[in-house]
Amino acid sequence: MRTFKLTLEYDGTDFNGWQIQENANRTIQGEIEKVLSKIFKKKRVVLIGSGRTDKGVHAKGQVAHFRAETTLTIRQIQHALNDHLPYDVVVRDVCEVDEKFHAQFNAVSKKYSYAIINRSYPSALERKFSLFFPHRLNIALMRQEAKDFLGQHDFTSFANVNLSRKSDALRTIFSLDIKKKKDKIIITIEGDGFLYKMVRNIVGTLLAVGAGRLPKGSVKRILAQKDRRAAAMAVAPYGLCLEEVKY
Amino acid sequence: MRTFKLTLEYDGTDFNGWQIQENANRTIQGEIEKVLSKIFKKKRVVLIGSGRTDKGVHAKGQVAHFRAETTLTIRQIQHALNDHLPYDVVVRDVCEVDEKFHAQFNAVSKKYSYAIINRSYPSALERKFSLFFPHRLNIALMRQEAKDFLGQHDFTSFANVNLSRKSDALRTIFSLDIKKKKDKIIITIEGDGFLYKMVRNIVGTLLAVGAGRLPKGSVKRILAQKDRRAAAMAVAPYGLCLEEVKY
Repeated sequence: MRTFKLTLEYDGTDFNGWQIQENANRTIQGEIEKVLSKIFKKKRVVLIGSGRTDKGVHAKGQVAHFRAETTLTIRQIQHALNDHLPYDVVVRDVCEVDEKFHAQFNAVSKKYSYAIINRSYPSALERKFSLFFPHRLNIALMRQEAKDFLGQHDFTSFANVNLSRKSDALRTIFSLDIKKKKDKIIITIEGDGFLYKMVRNIVGTLLAVGAGRLPKGSVKRILAQKDRRAAAMAVAPYGLCLEEVKY
Repeated sequence: MRTFKLTLEYDGTDFNGWQIQENANRTIQGEIEKVLSKIFKKKRVVLIGSGRTDKGVHAKGQVAHFRAETTLTIRQIQHALNDHLPYDVVVRDVCEVDEKFHAQFNAVSKKYSYAIINRSYPSALERKFSLFFPHRLNIALMRQEAKDFLGQHDFTSFANVNLSRKSDALRTIFSLDIKKKKDKIIITIEGDGFLYKMVRNIVGTLLAVGAGRLPKGSVKRILAQKDRRAAAMAVAPYGLCLEEVKY
């Protein structure tokens, strides 16, 4: 048995997220497993991702692994996959890894980007890959607030599920950058792991601060409250992209 | 009667090009005229573009004009248009211009970009906005050849229609830049006007030179031949974007 690590790019627009579903819904995991089972002539080849991505979320560097008995080279596997996969999911890289490798449990950091079009009219070309936010933003204030996310915190206020144990919500943010180029803003956030909708809740709160709907100091206060109702609403999924997973 | 100039962004993917058609085909001009006739309560408000764009070609800065009897402000017109237009076409700007303004006849230059993904596997995220070209390219040689397009030439070899008069094919190229960033190449070309499929034929020929399928000096030779069969095939429309029209 050999173990293979895949690096994946996908356009999440027409997928119902990463995770395979019981019904006929089109998912990224489902589409790739279908092709893997064809290539390796097995009833099912299980593909384990670094984590789920929601419906509409994109990826440039999602990572997943599977095991197979095969004599194919990694290049042959990459070509076979890309030949059979639909156009909206692409295998960027295949490598063979130690049999103990696990895409989810071994991940040490994940990097996400969130794209925002900040002008008075929407974008036709980037509408599926960015949030249209027409309100004036105080970027300097957003950058100031962003600093309060850095380091280890209990992110209960920024997670969309109830957690059974408090320690479950402890996460460390390594970096949070806000870049502005003309009318496009890219927020990049890297951490050791993210709770359900955590990136989108963080971005929603930063936008609320930037637009003056939440006062300066809100991030610190909301983190301390440990109450999901304290933070702003999650932003739409289509601005979000999983850029990289590190091991 | 007032005259208005529109600056338009559109995602050409789901359009049958710019020009309105007799049948029910979805076109950019057709969709905008439909909304204009609603706003101004007229049977038809004619919208004249700087030129046609083909099926699948995108725009960030197409320009068009129309005339209307109205008391609406330019901001009101922009909002009314964007409120009613489908998501894949957006009005970036509206301004009122002299009644003699003509979007096609007064254009003094047009700038197009062409995007290429140059790596061994395609892109899921940019597949609708770039050409996938997996062959190794000699960018330095492409830049060298590109210089031979600059200035005024007879572009018969790069036009996909027969021209009745020779002078019809005389066009001036002001600039032709080739930028490479990681595995993405952007070719930007500005000129006083372009013949049918001219940009895509120029890009096709530059790629043929860069990939070693045509020898150094080909651009000069092909221009001199004044024969469409001399140049390489046109590249696909979806990599092309009309960036700007100057007046």
